[in-house]
Order: sequence, then C-alpha cells, then structure tokens
Amino acid sequence: MAVARPLRAGRRMQRLTIDLADRSYPILIGPGLLADAREWAERLPGGPLLVVTNETVGPPYLPRLRAALGARRLAECVLPDGEAHKTLATLARVFDALAAARVNRDGGVLALGGGVVGDLAGFAAASWQRGVAYAQLPTTLLAQVDSSVGGKTAVNHASGKNLIGAFHQPCVVAADTDALATLPEREFRAGLAEVIKYGLIRDPAFLAWLETAMPGLLAREPEALARAIRRSCEVKAEIVGRDEREHGERALLNLGHTFGHAIETAAGYGEWLHGEAVAIGTVMAAEASERLGWLSRADVERVLAAAGLPTAAPRIGVERALELMRMDKKVLGGRVRLVLLKRLGEAVVTGDYDERALLGTLQAQVA
Amino acid sequence: MAVARPLRAGRRMQRLTIDLADRSYPILIGPGLLADAREWAERLPGGPLLVVTNETVGPPYLPRLRAALGARRLAECVLPDGEAHKTLATLARVFDALAAARVNRDGGVLALGGGVVGDLAGFAAASWQRGVAYAQLPTTLLAQVDSSVGGKTAVNHASGKNLIGAFHQPCVVAADTDALATLPEREFRAGLAEVIKYGLIRDPAFLAWLETAMPGLLAREPEALARAIRRSCEVKAEIVGRDEREHGERALLNLGHTFGHAIETAAGYGEWLHGEAVAIGTVMAAEASERLGWLSRADVERVLAAAGLPTAAPRIGVERALELMRMDKKVLGGRVRLVLLKRLGEAVVTGDYDERALLGTLQAQVA
Repeated sequence: MAVARPLRAGRRMQRLTIDLADRSYPILIGPGLLADAREWAERLPGGPLLVVTNETVGPPYLPRLRAALGARRLAECVLPDGEAHKTLATLARVFDALAAARVNRDGGVLALGGGVVGDLAGFAAASWQRGVAYAQLPTTLLAQVDSSVGGKTAVNHASGKNLIGAFHQPCVVAADTDALATLPEREFRAGLAEVIKYGLIRDPAFLAWLETAMPGLLAREPEALARAIRRSCEVKAEIVGRDEREHGERALLNLGHTFGHAIETAAGYGEWLHGEAVAIGTVMAAEASERLGWLSRADVERVLAAAGLPTAAPRIGVERALELMRMDKKVLGGRVRLVLLKRLGEAVVTGDYDERALLGTLQAQVA
Repeated sequence: MAVARPLRAGRRMQRLTIDLADRSYPILIGPGLLADAREWAERLPGGPLLVVTNETVGPPYLPRLRAALGARRLAECVLPDGEAHKTLATLARVFDALAAARVNRDGGVLALGGGVVGDLAGFAAASWQRGVAYAQLPTTLLAQVDSSVGGKTAVNHASGKNLIGAFHQPCVVAADTDALATLPEREFRAGLAEVIKYGLIRDPAFLAWLETAMPGLLAREPEALARAIRRSCEVKAEIVGRDEREHGERALLNLGHTFGHAIETAAGYGEWLHGEAVAIGTVMAAEASERLGWLSRADVERVLAAAGLPTAAPRIGVERALELMRMDKKVLGGRVRLVLLKRLGEAVVTGDYDERALLGTLQAQVA
C-alpha cells in the first residue's frame, strides 16, 4: 500500500536553499518526507537509481521510500553500519552495485542514512562516471544538521578521517524529522554537538537559546528540534554559499574537528561517534582559546555537558595527537591551522597562534 | 650530476594554454623538459610532492627529474606497468604513499608516465584531501597528445573502462618529446590513433597532412612529431576550453572510444593497447557512418592502416559488445549515443541514428 502512512509532508515542512549558481539545491526539513516524496522526487534524475543505505536504517525506511517513489525502480546497496566501514573497500561495493544497476549519467544515487552513508554514497556519486546526481536523505540528527548539507563527501584512510573524497553537491536534501524519534540516545546527543557548534562559531543568540531549550531538545520536542535543525542548516547554507570549496570561511565549520578527527583515528574508527569526538575536540579548542586569553573554556564545556556529551579526551598521547593533526586538511606550510574561539559566537581559523597554547592543551588533555 | 645532460628546454619548446578561467594551465611541448624543469617547476605547489610512475618509466626518468627539481624533496610511488593495474586497488597504494609523504593541500602529485599513470595519479590527486594540485609529465605519444590534457582522470571498473574518476585539471602539462625516442614501436603507433582522431573529427587539412607525413612520423622525425603533437593539443585545448565537463562537444573526442572501450574490457584490460582499441573502434564508427550513407569507411581505414594500426575487431560477440557499450558514459535514456563521422574532418555525437547501422556494424565486425 503506497499510502499506508498519513501523508504529512508539507504540513510543517521548511525549505531552505543552498545558493551555488547552477549547483543550487533545496534543503527540505519536516516530518514524513520519506513517506511522501512529492516535494522532492521531481529533483531526481530520470534514469536508474541506486539507494545506498545500511543494515540499521534500511529495514525500517526502505519500504516507505519504495512506496513513496511508486513507479520508480530502485536498486539497493545495503552496507554494514558504522564509521569503521567508511572505507575504499566499502566504496568498491557501491561501485559494483552502480554497475549492476546500470546507473549512467542520467541516473543517480539516494543516500539514505547518517553521516557515514551520506559521505560514502556521495563520494561514490561524485566518482561514478566522473559524477552522477545524488539526493541526501539523512536519518540522523548529525546528518540532518551538518553532513548532508554542503557537498563534502569522503571515505576515511588509515592515517586520517575523510582524507579521500570530493566536493560534490547533492540535487536535494530531504531531512525527515520523523526519523529522529527512534534514533538511539547516544547518536541523538552526538548530533547536538554539531548544533552547538553553529552557535559557538556564528550565533551567540542561538547558543543562548540552545542552553535554555536543552531539556526540550533532549526530550525531542518537535518544535524545539525543528528550530535547532533549521537554524543549523541556515548557518551552514550561508557559509557554504560563500565558500563552497573551503578556501577560507568554511573552515570555521571545522571547530573541534582537528582535535576530534585525531581522537577518532587514534581510538579506532567507530570507538567514538563523530559528534562525541567533535564535542571533546571543541572543549580542547576552547581550552587552547582560553590559553590565548580569548574566552572561558568552562562556558563552552557547560553547554556540551548539558547535552550529555563527553568533554574529557581519551589519553591518546601528545605525540600521536600531533602526528594525526598534521594530516589535517587545513595544514599549510607544515603548520597546523586551528579553529579557535575569540568569544562565544565568534570563531577564527588561524595558523598564527602561540604554539604553547596548543602544546599546553594537549599536555593537559591527552598526555 | 644535475647537469649531466644538455639543457635544451626552451630551444624548440612550444607552449599552448588550456583556457579555463581560474583553472587555466600551460601545455609545454619540447625536448629536454624532464631534464630541465625551469619552464614549469614554478607551477608546482610549494609543499611535499609525490611522483607517481611505473616500473618501466621510473628507472630511466626519475633520476633526471630529481636532478631537474634539485632542492625539492620528492617521494616516489612506483606502480606496476599496464592497463590491468589501473584499478581501485592500485589507487589505494597511491593514497598510502600520499599519506606517508605527508602531502597536504599545499603539496601535490607529479604524474610521470603514460595514460595509465596519468589517469590514475590524476584521480588520486583529485580525491586526496578532496583535491590537491598535480602536474602531468607524459612520456608516451598517446599521453602527450591526449590523456594528459583536459583533466579527465579515472580508474577502470570490471564492468567498463574509466568508470570511476573525476574532472580535475592539472597545474601544468610538460611533454618531453625526448621520451618518444625510446618508446616501443607498438606504443608509438597506438598514440598515432589519437593523433589521427583529431584530424577525423575536426581538421581535414591536418588529416591530409598526416597521411603524407606518415613515413616521417613513423621514423619519429622531430619536426613531424612536433607538428603532430602541437596540432593535436591545439584541437583538444579548443574543445576542452569550450566544454570542460563534456556536456556536449567534448564527447566528439570519444570517436572510436565507445566501441574501443568495449573491446578493451571484453578482451581483458591490457590485451589491447588503448590506442589500438581506439583504432579498431574508429573503423567501426566509420562503418556505422558508411551504413548511414555519410562517408566511406575505406578512407578512414586507410589512414589508420598506414600508421600500422590494427583495423579488424576481435570477435567478442554482438551481445557482449552491446552489454559493454550500454555502460558507456554517453548513454542517455538507455540509448547508446555514438560519435559518428559525417565526412572526413567532421564528427557528430548522436543517439538519433538508425539502430540497424549499429547492429549491422557489430554483426559484420564482432559476431
């Protein structure tokens, strides 16, 4: 039955636009978007489609997606779940599925899942036949507020996170907020780390609102969630629209990520959820900022802790941390550039900082 | 000794430009360009560099490249030789080498070799950290006239040639014509297939000149070679400058490639050299064109045969050929689009042809 579920899309749906000339696309946020594709199916290419998803997300959501897309034939590629599978080897499986499904340049990919699925399926779409269209259908909070928006795609390398990838914009992002109701608590909280990030780097009023609204967010109240997701996507859309390929401002979105990626890689992919590592990394960035006399680390830590996020780093060692941070994509002339906080709501990316602030932070946090 | 060889670059060097706004770059053609990097080294990024080459090309050319780049530290990644190694597995080795060499976005890749090395190293550069700079240092005729120019990068998939890749323009192409002196005869002739292609699709006068100049070209006379390479690169530069991402006109450069890729894949990568398969594919495209009443296949076959190229297809079977052709990147709406010849010097890309011309050609050539 194609209409077994109530068709609610449109009722409270919000629409934003990523403004990138001929690569512009809409972000749709609202309940029921997977069960009712009327608002976004027209954005899909006309040829064969491959849905890339994982073993956790596929079983509950594939049937409603199939029903929503009705007459369209969809091939499937169901991957194992987790960051440990965001590899070239898994990517090769997606290419095999694309070949089997005869996806050509008039076809495309649907990325149904969280950040791992979106990043990997997006890179597959970027590379298959040198680029086919794809839609992001994010089902986790982290993917809905961050990874599905902006066209960064990648897989991991043993030496670092997201080191192999492409900039490739999706043709549409459809974030079905119904999917958040069943998200495991730990994953939900991990997504809040990226939401808080937007407040920290750009919007002190949003940050203040997040702090007061945190109980409602943690209770997953729809109105609070909708506001948090919308504002997150707005900030990201603004920044990506001005700096698609991260020549400057876009690097601010990496607050907490240089430290966080090092923690994820050192601990083994999958040990920490990405959002958890970002939370810890954000505290470390705040500590380095405090050591430069810029703001109080405690103010940052308090918001993250209120979201139930970890704030203490695992003891991966100073040398290992530095080695991994040197693989960061922001390194320039051998210098690790950091995203630091001037004050709450204002971030800077800089390689021009007192080295002792970085070493002191690592000594205190990971030694 | 850094100057053991005479420094001849510049003496008879030719310079063309690929005009792509902020992605524009020079193509340098001439003797001694690997031994004397003064004309192109300034185009390289300032950070760590990785040379990607193969077991055949590396030993003779790496020492002179090292000498030419003097103080620059170069890491090396030496791959096995041949089309059979243009795979994701080999690509993974290049990523490992990039990590070991600590190549960040301020570093880059030097692709030293023929089309396989250039395509694979270029794709590695396109994907590493979502894109680092690379230079094409082509050492075969085919790479100098075609694959090193225009930013198409790729590896093969079991189901078809070049199905996984990216558009990523190099920062410079430096084609050292000295390298052609020692190129094996079979590889040299394979390169002539792409030279002849430019005449067939765009320039009847060049085609006529090629036919008369063929004995000199086969004797590798420097003046004839220089003219052939220059004109080939000019035609390619014009077309790529107008249609970088193959939305239209650039597909003309695929004359003979839809048939040719099917032959390469069916026979097993490496059995036929790419240029040989293109020669056979060009004869098949000419036959299909003749069946449409457009030109005489014999006129096309004669030029290719004069270059010592194969013109008869292996009997891969009509069904297998069609199956492989349907994986072609030019397929649209399930329809195989073909590059056909209206007359000598004028090609068209079209899906609007009498199917019997294609089937008749396959029956006659591969059944």
